[in-house]
Amino acid sequence: MDRRSFLRASTAGGAAAAASALAAPAYAQGRRTLTLVTTWGRGLAGVHDSAQYCADQITAATDGQLTVELKAAGELVGAFEVFDAVSAGQADMYHGVDYYFLGQHPALSFFSQVPFGMNFMEYANWYYHDGGMELADELYSIFGLKAFPSGNTGPQSGGWFASEITSPEDFQGLKFRMPGQGGQVLGKLGASVQNLPGAEVYQALSSGAIDGTEWIGPWADEKAGFQEITKTYYTAGFHEPGPNLNLTMNLEVYESLTPAQQEIVAQVSRASNIWTMSLFMANNSSALQRLQSGGVQLAEFPDSVWDAFGAAAQEVVQEPMDDDIYKRCYDSYMESLRSSAQWISRSEGAFSAQRNRVMGI
Amino acid sequence: MDRRSFLRASTAGGAAAAASALAAPAYAQGRRTLTLVTTWGRGLAGVHDSAQYCADQITAATDGQLTVELKAAGELVGAFEVFDAVSAGQADMYHGVDYYFLGQHPALSFFSQVPFGMNFMEYANWYYHDGGMELADELYSIFGLKAFPSGNTGPQSGGWFASEITSPEDFQGLKFRMPGQGGQVLGKLGASVQNLPGAEVYQALSSGAIDGTEWIGPWADEKAGFQEITKTYYTAGFHEPGPNLNLTMNLEVYESLTPAQQEIVAQVSRASNIWTMSLFMANNSSALQRLQSGGVQLAEFPDSVWDAFGAAAQEVVQEPMDDDIYKRCYDSYMESLRSSAQWISRSEGAFSAQRNRVMGI
Repeated sequence: MDRRSFLRASTAGGAAAAASALAAPAYAQGRRTLTLVTTWGRGLAGVHDSAQYCADQITAATDGQLTVELKAAGELVGAFEVFDAVSAGQADMYHGVDYYFLGQHPALSFFSQVPFGMNFMEYANWYYHDGGMELADELYSIFGLKAFPSGNTGPQSGGWFASEITSPEDFQGLKFRMPGQGGQVLGKLGASVQNLPGAEVYQALSSGAIDGTEWIGPWADEKAGFQEITKTYYTAGFHEPGPNLNLTMNLEVYESLTPAQQEIVAQVSRASNIWTMSLFMANNSSALQRLQSGGVQLAEFPDSVWDAFGAAAQEVVQEPMDDDIYKRCYDSYMESLRSSAQWISRSEGAFSAQRNRVMGI
Repeated sequence: MDRRSFLRASTAGGAAAAASALAAPAYAQGRRTLTLVTTWGRGLAGVHDSAQYCADQITAATDGQLTVELKAAGELVGAFEVFDAVSAGQADMYHGVDYYFLGQHPALSFFSQVPFGMNFMEYANWYYHDGGMELADELYSIFGLKAFPSGNTGPQSGGWFASEITSPEDFQGLKFRMPGQGGQVLGKLGASVQNLPGAEVYQALSSGAIDGTEWIGPWADEKAGFQEITKTYYTAGFHEPGPNLNLTMNLEVYESLTPAQQEIVAQVSRASNIWTMSLFMANNSSALQRLQSGGVQLAEFPDSVWDAFGAAAQEVVQEPMDDDIYKRCYDSYMESLRSSAQWISRSEGAFSAQRNRVMGI
């Protein structure tokens, strides 16, 4: 079924009414059900909650005129099939992280995560005010999509290892789960990198199919249960300092909404962005304490390992530079990152250092 | 006019229809105009933009069923009169920062800014997920209000001084503009503190009525023009690491909205929260460079001054502790702050330090 005939079939009379010039009467008459697929297994802490937030709040804010039904990974399509499914019109929208789809276009890394890249705040600066949104619209429209940042996990932990990492050579031959450009970086250090969706990681780790994994951070990792299998946990990581989760609509479906409905999708996505980020950040500290009480050892990579991550990341991020839109995204992203980072360091960095010193935090 | 009769007069037939049990027909029929007053002079960079964002997006997302008209400070009521005006029903809502109203209740500091307190992210953690919202609802309902966090300026700069600050004694007799508990802290150091709304600060500084001032940060301060008068600028400050701007509705007006309209107000406020914060953060770095090019000297307070700020802040924050709700807010706020700050330091702090070192930012 092609996208256009799918659209006709799935939206029945509602879409035609909603898309008419007479928006007000259509709003009262038309009720549409929109299908939201995700890259997350049902119930995965934080990320599934973020998708559910978007579904519930769009439904509530439109008084059910748009009723969003969430189908988690595997319920309609698999985690790694959502991009194609929404691009082709088999589902109306997806919630997920787009470094799973770098095979579609390498520039999707800028709208999910670049290693040594932006944190949540820096990404919001770029996206909302510094050129990111315009580049995203250009990139996603190639695939018949319209993307809205709708969540962030905060800085992801370095991950779970069977034993301590003391030098870059320790990654040689290590079977490790890490998606996106971060995984490509570990590949350059000699690791055998696997790209598994979240719902499959526990099984892979417990069976020995992988030696170690990163997932998200203390709260989501605890819920996933990795501490039952391995006990060495690196809290800071290079690979995902602030991965962006998008709510991405089929562009024709988006364009068939009334202006008020389009506005509600945009506003709920922004609301979900800060709601989701703070959900992770509010839960991590207590989860980390529980993990420690249960015998998990916390660790930090030595500078030599950070340096090796940095050199390999530089190579990985440069590789797709022949692609025009990739290069324009890179230039815009890096200029904004440097500008944001300098101010944050001088303001929030300087304040937090003094506050934590004065108050003994 | 009492609040109830004002409500009847101002909302005419629309409110009655909207509040009926038959929400869907009412939604199509009733159109209401809501008046939004602010603590900001029209056009003040960032803060006025944040209020306008809320007005415009609520209007757009409701397809004009709620049409929000912004009246900036002085256009309907003065900057410092908005709390009383909305509480009494003379206006439907206000956008502002509530440390201007500590005379109404000292616990409003927790929902605007506490010196040495939370930054934007820590505040979002507390408000959305860690008890802050429930305490806000309890506090604001005393005044017939319902408050939504709807913006943040990010860490505010230490401010503009005629000459360098080398010890806490330099604040003796200094005529300085700083509102809220931060101003009370400078008072303990011997300063003569003035609490002026933003639109009046430039005139006070240029006339010599005050020796120095803080306002927001490089971008908003540059727009206000303080660099034309004084050249010594402290970038990091103790007083407002992440001041929260609320969109606050008259509670009866809020309760007269349909559930979908209430949802839209909540979602737009959250969207504005991250949109506003990133607006400031995206603009500060380039503004700071322009200020420096124009001859402004950047400075940081020495540790001895930070220590004096800390000791005085501890006194100020403890003073209203006899009040029950103040104490419960304090306990909840401080527990959440310590938890958030520890994780942020271990994750984002550790990552940013390594990234900026490896990448030479």
